[in-house]
Amino acid sequence: MKSVAVLPGDGIGPEVVSAALSVLDRLDLPLLLRFGDIGWECWKQEGNPVPERTWRLLEETDTCLLGAVTSKPLREAEVELAGRLRGQGLEFISPVVQLRQRLRLFANIRPVTDLKHGRFNFVVIRENTEGLYAGLDFHGIQDPLWKEVRDHPNAAESGPASTSVTLRLQTSTGMDRILRFGFEYARRHGYSSLTVADKPNVLRQSGNHLRERLERVGADYPDIGAEILNVDAVALWMVRRPERFGVIVAENMFGDILSDLGAGVMGGLGLAPSGNVGDHGSYFEPVHGSAPGMAGQGRANPVATLLTVALLLDHLELAVPARQLRDAVHAVVLRRTAVTYDLGGNASTSQAAESVADQLSSI
Amino acid sequence: MKSVAVLPGDGIGPEVVSAALSVLDRLDLPLLLRFGDIGWECWKQEGNPVPERTWRLLEETDTCLLGAVTSKPLREAEVELAGRLRGQGLEFISPVVQLRQRLRLFANIRPVTDLKHGRFNFVVIRENTEGLYAGLDFHGIQDPLWKEVRDHPNAAESGPASTSVTLRLQTSTGMDRILRFGFEYARRHGYSSLTVADKPNVLRQSGNHLRERLERVGADYPDIGAEILNVDAVALWMVRRPERFGVIVAENMFGDILSDLGAGVMGGLGLAPSGNVGDHGSYFEPVHGSAPGMAGQGRANPVATLLTVALLLDHLELAVPARQLRDAVHAVVLRRTAVTYDLGGNASTSQAAESVADQLSSI
Ligand SMILES: CC(C)[C@H](C(=O)O)[C@@H](O)C(=O)O
Ligand SMILES: CC(C)[C@H](C(=O)O)[C@@H](O)C(=O)O
Repeated sequence: MKSVAVLPGDGIGPEVVSAALSVLDRLDLPLLLRFGDIGWECWKQEGNPVPERTWRLLEETDTCLLGAVTSKPLREAEVELAGRLRGQGLEFISPVVQLRQRLRLFANIRPVTDLKHGRFNFVVIRENTEGLYAGLDFHGIQDPLWKEVRDHPNAAESGPASTSVTLRLQTSTGMDRILRFGFEYARRHGYSSLTVADKPNVLRQSGNHLRERLERVGADYPDIGAEILNVDAVALWMVRRPERFGVIVAENMFGDILSDLGAGVMGGLGLAPSGNVGDHGSYFEPVHGSAPGMAGQGRANPVATLLTVALLLDHLELAVPARQLRDAVHAVVLRRTAVTYDLGGNASTSQAAESVADQLSSI
Repeated sequence: MKSVAVLPGDGIGPEVVSAALSVLDRLDLPLLLRFGDIGWECWKQEGNPVPERTWRLLEETDTCLLGAVTSKPLREAEVELAGRLRGQGLEFISPVVQLRQRLRLFANIRPVTDLKHGRFNFVVIRENTEGLYAGLDFHGIQDPLWKEVRDHPNAAESGPASTSVTLRLQTSTGMDRILRFGFEYARRHGYSSLTVADKPNVLRQSGNHLRERLERVGADYPDIGAEILNVDAVALWMVRRPERFGVIVAENMFGDILSDLGAGVMGGLGLAPSGNVGDHGSYFEPVHGSAPGMAGQGRANPVATLLTVALLLDHLELAVPARQLRDAVHAVVLRRTAVTYDLGGNASTSQAAESVADQLSSI
């Protein structure tokens, strides 16, 4: 029997997870669910948003469903608390970034589908372990480490203490891994094209590096048409002609922006699922955050989490129930009778989930 | 009499510029136009896409209208040529990046307006001189300069020769300047809110730096509500609720992506104008590129260039003709009788321009 760690997390996380689990229940699958803690409350109480027992749980289970976590604590709360914890040498590092990096979940999969009209169906595959997220972000620079920086006119004017530097780190290891993952994903899901979103007309050296790796890895996939497109153009075309895309591969920060944009193109955060996958682990989460302002009201759209569960089932090679779940969600969204406020309806979280469950039973 | 350098450039650049100038002519303004060269042909013939005589022209004139330049030369052409020129120590650096950096045009202004229904009207103001565009992009890193980098697991696995690093440089000088520009712009144009697109929940050090500077500069503008929003959320909301934004300020690369996205939200590159402004210079260009595949066909939409001319007139404090031109463009787009293919019409570049000119005369 496969086991799934369930981490409801903060804000609306618990609500959408519990709604989604009630639907999963209807599928009657041989899955062992094991609940655990993550997020803001853990940080407050234990000084770490991902406690040790949660890391152990993740080790002991086959995959994980995450609700949502508060990654940018509310302003006033942060000032007081962050000061206190930092005094103890503790810094708040986004729990999802921790999961992705420590478990080496190098691929962040974010399908973008037109649930209503089926006009587009692409996927953003974001590199998760390097780029601007490598943790090399400095306010104030030291001499002589940053000789290259000091010569820049703005830095010369501001001086080292008033200069910030963030390193965008990219490696052949990281590039090859995400490109190969993208090509394999394309093959498995019947996509014929792979677009790499980069900025080679400005970042020429790293752009050449990426082109070299794409040519090398792409040689193993002559059946998939590969291209490099400027990231700004990708953003534009995602809005203007989303049907032009199949698999889009992007480095971490570009992928972050493009995949949230993808949620916008889909019709909102209430619909967008995601998965984070590595060689030895994975977790699945809706793209939306914990939306603290909406928590406890039972209004959040459970669709993103339901589609996230479908991705998770795919990952566990439970393709048939995954498809059934997806079909049921599509049917409910299309019918528009039991949808939440963001889709123009007035169903509650659990009502929307229930109608998906009913739809499942009626198959 | 004010003078304007006109640099038609590559691809469709000359077509849209000539169409726009025919409309400008109708406004009968006391402007001296002085034509000059820029772009791919200059690079081919002189090893520099911005020849010395063009820099001189820019010095001697009050501002500049740029058509479009080919910034990423076509693949095959590049291989042969780039090799030859690089052999002579010459590297192709995007002409627009050269203009922005050398003339210190720190602010890139990209208004995003709903030409048809007036439902949204915001502006992306992009920092133009630092960020990932600082020119600090390396394929292969050296020891011991990059100690911080070597410890990253991917870099450790790949080795220094297979690691690329790009520096995102941000300074108090750069931040203060663009923030102040944004606030002033907001005041002058009647916007009540300023949104800074950043990524403080991940890039905490540079994020703190920016927040400090925003608090300091913002103190002079208590009438403008300022917020910092994650760049991914800005991308999402630009698509879902564009009417929520007033002035959006972003660092160079985020601004590059968001402003192209803005063109998408407006209805396409054929509509989007931009200006690049500094303390001692400026140039104005449509957001679209040179579109080599479409050049010479007379099909390109002149609207982006016409609205760009309106921005240029604003800059020269010719506010009345600027408004007249804008109104005429809006009227023609709304009427839809003489618009180009991208707006669903079949007018040619010059026909579309002509109908704007006629509209102007009819005022
Ligand atoms: C919460 C934040 C750290 C995270 C990210 O930037 O990756 C989020 O935006 C996401 O896309 O999953
Ligand atoms: C052509 C390219 C160098 C440029 C940029 O990245 O700034 C373009 O995309 C723009 O937005 O003006």
